Amino acid sequence: MAKREKTIKIEPIGEVRNDFKEEIPEGYENLPSEIVIKEEYSEALYHIEENSHIMVLFWMDRVEGRRRKKMRIHPKGRKDLPLMGVLATRTPNRPNPIGVRAVRLIEKEKNILKVEGLDALNGSPVLDIKPYSIKHDFVEDAKPPWWVKHLWDKKE
Amino acid sequence: MAKREKTIKIEPIGEVRNDFKEEIPEGYENLPSEIVIKEEYSEALYHIEENSHIMVLFWMDRVEGRRRKKMRIHPKGRKDLPLMGVLATRTPNRPNPIGVRAVRLIEKEKNILKVEGLDALNGSPVLDIKPYSIKHDFVEDAKPPWWVKHLWDKKE
Repeated sequence: MAKREKTIKIEPIGEVRNDFKEEIPEGYENLPSEIVIKEEYSEALYHIEENSHIMVLFWMDRVEGRRRKKMRIHPKGRKDLPLMGVLATRTPNRPNPIGVRAVRLIEKEKNILKVEGLDALNGSPVLDIKPYSIKHDFVEDAKPPWWVKHLWDKKE
Repeated sequence: MAKREKTIKIEPIGEVRNDFKEEIPEGYENLPSEIVIKEEYSEALYHIEENSHIMVLFWMDRVEGRRRKKMRIHPKGRKDLPLMGVLATRTPNRPNPIGVRAVRLIEKEKNILKVEGLDALNGSPVLDIKPYSIKHDFVEDAKPPWWVKHLWDKKE
């Protein structure tokens, strides 16, 4: 694996603006955020508003080094949930804290995308934006582990 | 935006192994790949096999600099499809060529994940792995642009 084993350098294409200063609030699914794309990439957004939903890739820059070294966790910090590898959960505490979220695209205004449902903190660097694809991103027969179903059934 | 305007350095957590040397073949949706996770992260995969599907984030390292500077394209290089901003398409020719794909997880063997449906070239660095979440990644009411529907109807 040695040949390709090198650091990848990524320049963000923009950043998130919202009211989430320290943590993601309950009900973020219906709360607005703006994605401010650098002006040099404005043209790359051409016709993006034809999509009802987009996928946002962002860097969770508030996750410090020590939290990136954890290997196993109890999801949501709950001891009643089974111990899982971090890559088997959606915790931000992962080796490369890249967030991926499908959000509703409300409006485009020049280089600013107004969206709803983003779970990124204010100021998070944005790495990429993609149109949500029903063909590729929509997996109807996906089955989660039992404890995830359990949480949903109890609406936790 | 100046304060956070800095390069993000990412160390891959593994790499893709498959038979796709130069391009993604037709029918890749049913073809196998292996994701070889670095041994130091083996433990972070604990219990991942409880998920039927995972999301793979990978770096499309064969996309050279000049292809990352394009702003608008005709999807699939087809002049009969409307000109779109690159961020409004799933082209690999984007400022930060990060691939995101939901794949079927067939088997885990130590630090190797056998999957089906990955559209990454052999040797692509893997940045992150997440369990597919029906709650977050499944957007039932997503609507694509007219020309995407048109391609699907014609099965192109």
